[in-house]
Amino acid sequence: MGYPNSLSDLINYFRKLPGIGEKSAERMALSLLELSCDDVENFAEAMVDSKKNLHPCSVCGHITDKDVCDICSSGRRNRSVICILEDYKSVFAFEKAGNYNGVYHVLNGLISPIDDVNPEDINIASLIDRVEKLDHPELIIALKSTIEGETTTLYLKKIFEGKNVEISRLSYGIPMGAEIDYLDEITLDRALSDRKKISD
Amino acid sequence: MGYPNSLSDLINYFRKLPGIGEKSAERMALSLLELSCDDVENFAEAMVDSKKNLHPCSVCGHITDKDVCDICSSGRRNRSVICILEDYKSVFAFEKAGNYNGVYHVLNGLISPIDDVNPEDINIASLIDRVEKLDHPELIIALKSTIEGETTTLYLKKIFEGKNVEISRLSYGIPMGAEIDYLDEITLDRALSDRKKISD
Repeated sequence: MGYPNSLSDLINYFRKLPGIGEKSAERMALSLLELSCDDVENFAEAMVDSKKNLHPCSVCGHITDKDVCDICSSGRRNRSVICILEDYKSVFAFEKAGNYNGVYHVLNGLISPIDDVNPEDINIASLIDRVEKLDHPELIIALKSTIEGETTTLYLKKIFEGKNVEISRLSYGIPMGAEIDYLDEITLDRALSDRKKISD
Repeated sequence: MGYPNSLSDLINYFRKLPGIGEKSAERMALSLLELSCDDVENFAEAMVDSKKNLHPCSVCGHITDKDVCDICSSGRRNRSVICILEDYKSVFAFEKAGNYNGVYHVLNGLISPIDDVNPEDINIASLIDRVEKLDHPELIIALKSTIEGETTTLYLKKIFEGKNVEISRLSYGIPMGAEIDYLDEITLDRALSDRKKISD
């Protein structure tokens, strides 16, 4: 005899979340039943609310419950430094690190000819608009080092080249605290060719 | 700048689930936003429905969406063999193993004088009623081997002794496939004292 219907539905929904296999989904669904009725209702409400209230910021594309996100509307951020990211999850990662004082631009995807994702399919047009309004802005490209990431980086470089825009990308190399002997060869190769002088 | 309010609420609710730390809760909440609106609404509905529709079976105490659970109402189960469990999660574990053909009785707790949980606080009275209606029933006590589990087992043994009831408990010993050298001493000690003759 298996789970009652409503419970197996719930388990199936939990399995849609990343990294949740059958066993974890069962454990979560069963534990959910142990929360109070109020907690379960508020949890369900928070889910629906988040999905309904959050939408892209009209300036940078980061998710927000306002028209313009807190970062774009903050008076303390340097609006002439724009960090270009693939998705809003990366924005949260940068904000957690806490040392970046510029603003962001979320592309919401990467150029990928194989998957038929062209430059006009991602959030690039609005970036060009933003950059044109600024006097000598700095763009920091922070995309992952896959074919799609590199293609997008090159495309952005080509667009903004010669337009009085300073462009950089994040450094590649050994992650902090990593054991050298466990690193993959491509990262090690990259770290070697991008080596920095320490006499400076 | 942190998460928008509705998102941080959602993250906090995910953290109430077992084994979910801050990082996983964030990942889940953010991935939930990537599901379709319909999926999120149905997920939320499944949560509330499960909590509302599921209640203890009036016979055995297992959770069900009916008055009597599928196991108790099944014609194929041997109703004179009752396996006594702490909670409904254990019922699902037994049903998954799939080799048990009797019925269950969920105590919904264990006797624990320290936490002020007495025999009348758990589902024992209804077990006595059930047993009295049966002719020479078999009780299989499947409680964990903690002080509370042992106390409850002893209490049950005392109640049903001399009443034409066959009582057994699950065997303790080495889990299947476990490495002997990694086992804790108490389990190893128990496995030794409970050793079985293989010449039989």
